[in-house]
Amino acid sequence: MTERISSVDTLDVRFPTSRHRDGSDAMNPFPDYSAAYVVLRTTAGAEGHGLVFTVGRGTELAVAAVRSLAPMVVGQPVDELIADPGELSRRLVGDSQIRWLGPAKGVVHMAAGGLVNAVWDLAARRAGKPLWKLLADLTPEQLVGQVDFRYLRDALTEDEALALLRTAAPGRAERERILLAEGYPAYTTTPGWLGYDDEKLARLCREAVDAGYDLIKLKVGGDLTDDVRRLGIARQAVGPKVRIAVDANQIWGVPDAIGWMRELRRFDPYWIEEPTSPDDVLGHAAIRRALAPVKVATGEHVHNAVVFKQLLQAAAVDVVQIDACRVAGVNENLAVLLLAAKFGVPVCPHAGGVGLCELVQHLAMFDFVAVSGSTEDRAIEYVDHLHEHFVDPVRISGGRYRAPTVPGMSAEIVAETLTAYRFPDGPQWADGAADRTTEPATTAEIA
Amino acid sequence: MTERISSVDTLDVRFPTSRHRDGSDAMNPFPDYSAAYVVLRTTAGAEGHGLVFTVGRGTELAVAAVRSLAPMVVGQPVDELIADPGELSRRLVGDSQIRWLGPAKGVVHMAAGGLVNAVWDLAARRAGKPLWKLLADLTPEQLVGQVDFRYLRDALTEDEALALLRTAAPGRAERERILLAEGYPAYTTTPGWLGYDDEKLARLCREAVDAGYDLIKLKVGGDLTDDVRRLGIARQAVGPKVRIAVDANQIWGVPDAIGWMRELRRFDPYWIEEPTSPDDVLGHAAIRRALAPVKVATGEHVHNAVVFKQLLQAAAVDVVQIDACRVAGVNENLAVLLLAAKFGVPVCPHAGGVGLCELVQHLAMFDFVAVSGSTEDRAIEYVDHLHEHFVDPVRISGGRYRAPTVPGMSAEIVAETLTAYRFPDGPQWADGAADRTTEPATTAEIA
Repeated sequence: MTERISSVDTLDVRFPTSRHRDGSDAMNPFPDYSAAYVVLRTTAGAEGHGLVFTVGRGTELAVAAVRSLAPMVVGQPVDELIADPGELSRRLVGDSQIRWLGPAKGVVHMAAGGLVNAVWDLAARRAGKPLWKLLADLTPEQLVGQVDFRYLRDALTEDEALALLRTAAPGRAERERILLAEGYPAYTTTPGWLGYDDEKLARLCREAVDAGYDLIKLKVGGDLTDDVRRLGIARQAVGPKVRIAVDANQIWGVPDAIGWMRELRRFDPYWIEEPTSPDDVLGHAAIRRALAPVKVATGEHVHNAVVFKQLLQAAAVDVVQIDACRVAGVNENLAVLLLAAKFGVPVCPHAGGVGLCELVQHLAMFDFVAVSGSTEDRAIEYVDHLHEHFVDPVRISGGRYRAPTVPGMSAEIVAETLTAYRFPDGPQWADGAADRTTEPATTAEIA
Repeated sequence: MTERISSVDTLDVRFPTSRHRDGSDAMNPFPDYSAAYVVLRTTAGAEGHGLVFTVGRGTELAVAAVRSLAPMVVGQPVDELIADPGELSRRLVGDSQIRWLGPAKGVVHMAAGGLVNAVWDLAARRAGKPLWKLLADLTPEQLVGQVDFRYLRDALTEDEALALLRTAAPGRAERERILLAEGYPAYTTTPGWLGYDDEKLARLCREAVDAGYDLIKLKVGGDLTDDVRRLGIARQAVGPKVRIAVDANQIWGVPDAIGWMRELRRFDPYWIEEPTSPDDVLGHAAIRRALAPVKVATGEHVHNAVVFKQLLQAAAVDVVQIDACRVAGVNENLAVLLLAAKFGVPVCPHAGGVGLCELVQHLAMFDFVAVSGSTEDRAIEYVDHLHEHFVDPVRISGGRYRAPTVPGMSAEIVAETLTAYRFPDGPQWADGAADRTTEPATTAEIA
């Protein structure tokens, strides 16, 4: 009997991270890292796991969106589904009624990504390989077949993508060996949350250098005087050689971004991340022109490959920051990796939150082995929060991600966590904590 | 006692329009025009109505998103709310947790728009004025205060917006008189749905001309041979002087759009609408350069003012098509009207569906009276579907919208309709019709 997807379960899981100001930045003063967690089950008892990352309120909408899309997955034959997740991705993104709510953006797009990633997790488990290895073992033709080129051909055609992948193919085996031996570079955002005091900032900066990082990141954009003081502390703590990226989380308009960053330039910032609206391609291009040689980075909120395409066409970014859970899953991220390779722009994935490190490491490692073929100027963000909740957590040492070896996409959350952090009725949200998750009256205290 | 918002009710209302192929286009073969309908009620018994327009599946997500945002509205003092809906708009769009699901796009943004529009409806009822008149009676300073300029200042500053509005102010009274006497130009899409046969197309084209329209619109992009034949039929039916716009509803990539439209150029199309992804600013600019003097139009899926800003900055569009229910309501559309005026690009609102004509006419009429001061090269889309369900339906005569005079934003749906079309349990969806709303296996028949 044909094995089929028998169910799609989805769960609202929230971690009360706002209680300690972990993850606080200029636009997200009180995030509760959360997920609409997705589990596909098959008639033969196999599973695929995925998640839609969120920061608290609204997770119920991601859960609802997964449920709205689930009928397009349930009942599908597993062999066909895992042989061509791109077909599912196109159906989910292209549903002629649901696409009105995007198209290809927002909650419905992120939900599609959660489902598509869960199918890739299932495929990788079935193949007995970590996802990065499954992808790196696909032929250039198979990889190109997984991308929807409809809106991309003015920047990247199927033939150009094939040529890129074929050029990289002969070196795959050697790079896989290097990856397994040496891992993939990481950078850390742990020191730099806005909610931390100066003493904690300095201490965490020193610890990051001691742990082997040569790139750290600080949140900025709350208050200029504070930023000047904090960057001074950080620069003194890490010395002149360790790179310090800064991240404004979209707080500025274009003129503000340019003005503010000119005040911070003396601390030699490596990149400015999310200086303005993630939708503002032309704004990023203007900021980049004004601030060079400071690099411009964005991507964690870039909602689809069409916007990444334009960021590259307009020479608006120096660093492409893919996110595992923003776009419609592995397939659309594959498109972005190919676009970045075509334009010669390095990819430094966004991670942190909950599960983002676990998922996105597979894409960066696949990129190294089979697409860009390089780790130069590349690093995956790392934040040391919440990894203990994963069955196959990331492994970091010497400032590098170790390549996962467990089959799948590392998305599975441990069962106890799902019970404890289920919102709003898990024990971690008991005693009325769930009622205290409304927006604070003022965010003045974040400065 | 202070009057407050006592409740936000929202309802899933769907019209089974797909049964007759009304509204069929290249990307929406079987739309069921729908709405997440929003009713605010106050402690004094007043009401404000709004809606989030959708095309069927997924309406439940718009309803859920309104419910997720509703706690930010319930309990608010009515006088403060209606004196400054911009403050609410900023809070809804800026919620530091929910914005992760956008930001400023997709379901959460559309839901914010439904709520903000309902507040404006309440404000206009309270003032005893149709919304266009309420807006047109605000001072330039009040109007500028209703716009969030955070991401717009590189294209339009507060001072520039003030100057625009002050320049238009002296002519307001005279233009209001003209509007009330003559109405506002309309164009019709009624003839041009892809699902209609040639005979019906020709007949509806002739009827449109007879009814006084000098601009009609045809859907294209299903099949080139069919499009050539259909445009030939339409051009013959309407003669050389009536303008024919065409609408591809995002079916093409950039090179396809240019190639396909070169084949249709001989029929003198007035504009090509949505030639590609609504996110592709640079793509629209390339298409416009390649196809001039054929105009390029887009906007019904442009998700926020930042993207409209770039379309104008990049000289990517000749026609800005605002939609009443895509962005975060009246406030964000006010930003778009100001941007369009600054760049001297006419606004021709998208309408049709259910309720879009009713709502958006207010914005176009306000634009004429107080912003652009012109109806030249401007027209509001008109489709003669579903108006009977509104308490204050649009009035069309001689190819023109008559200015509404009933207080409010014309968003209120009649009570019987809400009962009959409620999804999935209203009588119109009884006998299992709701179960037949899944995507058809093939869309081949749309050609």
